[in-house]
Amino acid sequence: MSIKIGIVGYGNLGRGVECAIAKNPDMELGAVFTRRDPASISIKTEGVKVYSYNEIKDFKGKLDVLIICGGSATDLPKITPELAKDFNVIDSFDTHAKVPEHFANVDAAAKAGGNVAIISCGWDPGMFSLNRLYANCILPDGKDYTFWGKGVSQGHSDAIRRIEGVVDARQYTIPVEAALEAVRSGSNPELSTREKHTRECFVVAEEGADKARIEKEIKEMPNYFADYDTTVHFITKEELDRDHAGIPHGGFVIRTGQTGWNNEHKHTIEYSLKLDSNPEFTTGVLAACARAAVKMNKDGQTGCKSMFDVPPAALSHYDGDYLRAHML
Amino acid sequence: MSIKIGIVGYGNLGRGVECAIAKNPDMELGAVFTRRDPASISIKTEGVKVYSYNEIKDFKGKLDVLIICGGSATDLPKITPELAKDFNVIDSFDTHAKVPEHFANVDAAAKAGGNVAIISCGWDPGMFSLNRLYANCILPDGKDYTFWGKGVSQGHSDAIRRIEGVVDARQYTIPVEAALEAVRSGSNPELSTREKHTRECFVVAEEGADKARIEKEIKEMPNYFADYDTTVHFITKEELDRDHAGIPHGGFVIRTGQTGWNNEHKHTIEYSLKLDSNPEFTTGVLAACARAAVKMNKDGQTGCKSMFDVPPAALSHYDGDYLRAHML
Repeated sequence: MSIKIGIVGYGNLGRGVECAIAKNPDMELGAVFTRRDPASISIKTEGVKVYSYNEIKDFKGKLDVLIICGGSATDLPKITPELAKDFNVIDSFDTHAKVPEHFANVDAAAKAGGNVAIISCGWDPGMFSLNRLYANCILPDGKDYTFWGKGVSQGHSDAIRRIEGVVDARQYTIPVEAALEAVRSGSNPELSTREKHTRECFVVAEEGADKARIEKEIKEMPNYFADYDTTVHFITKEELDRDHAGIPHGGFVIRTGQTGWNNEHKHTIEYSLKLDSNPEFTTGVLAACARAAVKMNKDGQTGCKSMFDVPPAALSHYDGDYLRAHML
Repeated sequence: MSIKIGIVGYGNLGRGVECAIAKNPDMELGAVFTRRDPASISIKTEGVKVYSYNEIKDFKGKLDVLIICGGSATDLPKITPELAKDFNVIDSFDTHAKVPEHFANVDAAAKAGGNVAIISCGWDPGMFSLNRLYANCILPDGKDYTFWGKGVSQGHSDAIRRIEGVVDARQYTIPVEAALEAVRSGSNPELSTREKHTRECFVVAEEGADKARIEKEIKEMPNYFADYDTTVHFITKEELDRDHAGIPHGGFVIRTGQTGWNNEHKHTIEYSLKLDSNPEFTTGVLAACARAAVKMNKDGQTGCKSMFDVPPAALSHYDGDYLRAHML
């Protein structure tokens, strides 16, 4: 039996979910919901309609799960609890500091409605979190390191665009290879922000703009760039569109630790991702979590979960016998 | 409240479990059981006794979980179902082809006794299996690769020792760097056995033994060496004991896959381990699974599980609030 999925929001993430559904034999797209004019949106899946977000409650009981593709700043804190009353829901909430509050709000709504909600799905939070958790449980005496990149940071790109005289910009976060090697060696280094990552910026300036001033404003911007070694390249709009159109990302979660009665043995656990498309990989995780939410709800569970609470087998469309025979 | 653990069998794995318990603040060693003479065994934990395996049933209700440290060929198929009737149990059963049969036997016993059993815990099967499963769920359209090493293969070392004229031997399995790079590139190579791993052997021969004949017998041994590029080094017993006393291991699980409406984006997921001590890392996993078995049983679950069925949070001694605040 097919899992009928609704997509809420049709930006980069929503489009990624649509692609992910097409890759999963047990899933089908039921509907797309938008706060824009539905007539203005054209989707890829034949025979599926786009509806106004205002109509979403009419779909109660007609969709197995909703994947909510909104921003963590304002969309998800409002929408996820609202929809968890009537649907199993998935989101990718990634404001780490506000997870406890979001979890509590979604938990109350999902329990009231008898639904399962899985929040903070993706790769960080998500797969990186899971790898931190597993590694901590296996090696309780050790040290965690997370590196991001090489990849595009949307937030940092936006920050550059807000500088006067900047037409467009793309910022890459790059892990420092020497820091990665030091961590892998098991030497447990203490690494400063500057030692872990560098930032590389490709900037399109207005004609006649003061490039020296723009570069200085970028490099001295507090929180975003001041604590990093930052490189700024000025390029044309054509070059930006040609060479920097993608949204690649990735990173590394490493834990080193020691075992033995006298700490005589060292171990390194490393998980890494190299992604051509950050949103499409993220939505691959969201789709698998949508399946798990439906299964867990059928098993009688309700309330808010994170990927920490999801038995890995629930993410798969294969049954236990198959998984034990082929993947264990 | 502390989790009281019994260790069944005191070889490399049993000693590793003892070390792992000492690293986990919520665990204590309750007893060690052996089929040897208990008086012949001296353990590291003060105040804990070694008992004959024949006395183990007397401990029903007095230990929260048993970690069974036996071999997969003959010990575990018999002992795990036997003990699952009366205890929550953990094993590291690793005969892939016989997992379905072992699972069924243990499941019947654990359900009859109202206990939880988690089988095939460790790193392969175990953490490598989990990484195969997660990666398959996220990237349904892709290809899996597993590489082992660099590490000591006990089975291959034993096979060399059975050759006439061999006093002792240590065999290392080594992944081929070029194959790893080809996989990481996303080119989806089809790799033969010979292309994936090489085998390096350190052999102590009897005085006057025909080394050319020994080397030929190793290199031509079917299943073990014939399909690999194998290197043989003859060394002295002193050199073997000095340079090859450790039991290091490790490996790589890589999945590459494509996403997008037209497969336009490639992704690489890689999990790797570099372990100074294969048994101590394995027992780190066993200890975390022991905690999960106790928690799951308290939650009302019974029967046989693999790590596929364990919610990751159950492996941790932290509660959900802490995990979401610190690791998500």
